[in-house]
Amino acid sequence: MTEPLRLGIAGLGTVGVGLVRIIRRQAALLEARTGRRITISAISARTRDKDRGVPLSDYAWEDDPVALARRDDVDIFVELMGGADGPAKAATEAALKSGKDVVTANKAMLAVNGQALAELAEAQGRVIRFEAAVAGGIPVIKALTEGLAGNEIKRVMGVMNGTCNYILTRMQSAGLPYDVVFEEANQLGYLEADPELDVGGIDAGHKLSLLASIAFGTRVAFSDMELEGIGRITIEDIKQAADMGYRIKLLGVSRMTGRGLEQRMSPCLVPASSALGQLEGGTNMVVLEGDAVGQIVLRGAGAGEGPTASAVIADICDIARGFRLPVFGRPASSLTDATAAVSATPAAFYLRMALQDKPGALAKVATVLGEAGISINRMRQYDHDETLAPVLIVTHRCVRADLDRAITAMMKTGVVEGDPVALRIEEV
Amino acid sequence: MTEPLRLGIAGLGTVGVGLVRIIRRQAALLEARTGRRITISAISARTRDKDRGVPLSDYAWEDDPVALARRDDVDIFVELMGGADGPAKAATEAALKSGKDVVTANKAMLAVNGQALAELAEAQGRVIRFEAAVAGGIPVIKALTEGLAGNEIKRVMGVMNGTCNYILTRMQSAGLPYDVVFEEANQLGYLEADPELDVGGIDAGHKLSLLASIAFGTRVAFSDMELEGIGRITIEDIKQAADMGYRIKLLGVSRMTGRGLEQRMSPCLVPASSALGQLEGGTNMVVLEGDAVGQIVLRGAGAGEGPTASAVIADICDIARGFRLPVFGRPASSLTDATAAVSATPAAFYLRMALQDKPGALAKVATVLGEAGISINRMRQYDHDETLAPVLIVTHRCVRADLDRAITAMMKTGVVEGDPVALRIEEV
Repeated sequence: MTEPLRLGIAGLGTVGVGLVRIIRRQAALLEARTGRRITISAISARTRDKDRGVPLSDYAWEDDPVALARRDDVDIFVELMGGADGPAKAATEAALKSGKDVVTANKAMLAVNGQALAELAEAQGRVIRFEAAVAGGIPVIKALTEGLAGNEIKRVMGVMNGTCNYILTRMQSAGLPYDVVFEEANQLGYLEADPELDVGGIDAGHKLSLLASIAFGTRVAFSDMELEGIGRITIEDIKQAADMGYRIKLLGVSRMTGRGLEQRMSPCLVPASSALGQLEGGTNMVVLEGDAVGQIVLRGAGAGEGPTASAVIADICDIARGFRLPVFGRPASSLTDATAAVSATPAAFYLRMALQDKPGALAKVATVLGEAGISINRMRQYDHDETLAPVLIVTHRCVRADLDRAITAMMKTGVVEGDPVALRIEEV
Repeated sequence: MTEPLRLGIAGLGTVGVGLVRIIRRQAALLEARTGRRITISAISARTRDKDRGVPLSDYAWEDDPVALARRDDVDIFVELMGGADGPAKAATEAALKSGKDVVTANKAMLAVNGQALAELAEAQGRVIRFEAAVAGGIPVIKALTEGLAGNEIKRVMGVMNGTCNYILTRMQSAGLPYDVVFEEANQLGYLEADPELDVGGIDAGHKLSLLASIAFGTRVAFSDMELEGIGRITIEDIKQAADMGYRIKLLGVSRMTGRGLEQRMSPCLVPASSALGQLEGGTNMVVLEGDAVGQIVLRGAGAGEGPTASAVIADICDIARGFRLPVFGRPASSLTDATAAVSATPAAFYLRMALQDKPGALAKVATVLGEAGISINRMRQYDHDETLAPVLIVTHRCVRADLDRAITAMMKTGVVEGDPVALRIEEV
């Protein structure tokens, strides 16, 4: 008779409560599938006296997650508190040092401290699993680490922040401006306490940095990511993009190039008819491209009690089955320190700017582009009430750095008002 | 230093050659990811003297796959010959009895002999892995067995025969009749030697039966599957369905009901705007629904050298990493013998028939449906050159058995010519 696998759960928010529910409801199924009983020994959260809608009195209580992580009756420390540092990191370290495995949903902690934690875990012969940290219920870490293990990964893409995708698709469908939909999302409770984590692309960037590390065998390097939020996307951008057959998505793209690792999380145009283009609301999608398998697309709920808890319990089941892997799929000591490469993969760009409504303004902009070697695919100056003329240009394929130089030159002509918006048209 | 993991590969068609290529090209990557060197000891195929475009002289040759399976220098027997019985089964059994693990892409063998082989494997303490048998490069067995391990699976759906999807989407896009596109597919080499395996739904049915076993913990029961091919789908069906906002797909659906296990592989209507509806050409899609995770959609190439070999090597990597699971995810002895349940989940149906062009004919059909308690959502009699009037009816939600009784009654009215075609409108 195999011993039960005993959990200590720190953090009883949505995901923690969802996990407790699954373990109570599916005890027999989990045992049938893993060959081990999975039990909860102890729990911890900020507030003890709170009705969480699930019976918790069977489990020992710890005020301090570090104490929970060190308990003798805990085999796996389940970290669901969040936060890159502070108690989450302290308790994770304590768990590893006490010889426990760790399962976490904490993308920030791993994006910032992943290498150090992976080294600690591996030195202790322990695992850290984090399927729930990326794209909620979608088993994407598993697909990448195991399902595509024989592939050289060519590109990883993803729409991995449901709130941003909700905002962008709602702007599109309702024809409402960013500020209004942002406020709606806020009222609906979709936004993090610090909204920049969502709309600034930070949360999705954390996730992409973890996927990139697994895909390319590199140390997680969130600080090298090119990061751009959705705050400058206007309803006009969305309408103009739609007119041309595109949708705007906060899209993460990572690939290894001869110059180093490209990692970027930014609003991009993708064809409206593509799987990414058709992704609506809070759903997540990850696209994995391997040299043998071609393109694999995975879609599912990126957040919420059930989906995230589903990913946490999957990691626990793997540990129950004895499946043990290095944290980022290869030994932490073998991960390479990739050079951060500014995106130089050529692409067409969408460029929107406000021009002073005077003779020769458009010509000046076009000349600057031509001098930078960037040719124009289409250009449109559209109606507007104000004195400034909104102008939209779609370039032929070019390199971002050349475009940025052209934009700097444009600003010096004196005919462009404010900062132009440049959005990559990602070939998907 | 860990010992290398040594393969014996039987079958050097597209997939076998693809596997050899990956192992030669990605040796370092595979070792970095699994911690073991993966080598090929011996190979076997029907013909020895044939240029397969990849160097094979380093590997020992066996004429007999059974002898290959028993070699002392083989740790994993890789079965890529195909066929439900015969040499594939004999060699698989020999491998298991000699204490080897087995990796196979053979859906027919497992759909027909899966339970016996699983029992043999588990008695020998060996594993059989078959990711490549279902949906090519998509890691769907892994997603179901491991990624969604904490979920009670509610429904499994899939478009898993690329040839059928090619035929149906090509009929749609080119407006060509079935026979013409079937011949095209034949010329392109898309069809199995026995085309019924493809267009009769047998190949896709094999795959669904394997997924159902894993999803519901039941013994694989391919013989209980409701199977219907695409041979009766006309270009008119496709056009009429498109007019109403649907696409026709050879769709597999399996779910556990209070009455037993539903498994059906049949042409269905799905919304044109759904992920399944938008699936073009030879691509595969599997939809997994779990009580916690909700709906997960997986898309990728369902066949071809690279994608299928990618799935084979993933299974090999799992074995190299020491990941060992019962064949169908739970011990073979614990799999239940599910009652086969004729589909009784209510759905709307698309019904097409040819009526004699005489007064009262339509009324008779409508009356029969009404008497069977089936109400009509829409009805359309459309233009045609011949004396028979094509009539199309979309029912409200009803149970298939009631509809079948109504169809039998219709046929007795004497106004219906030939067999009506009834297609389920699956809610996706």
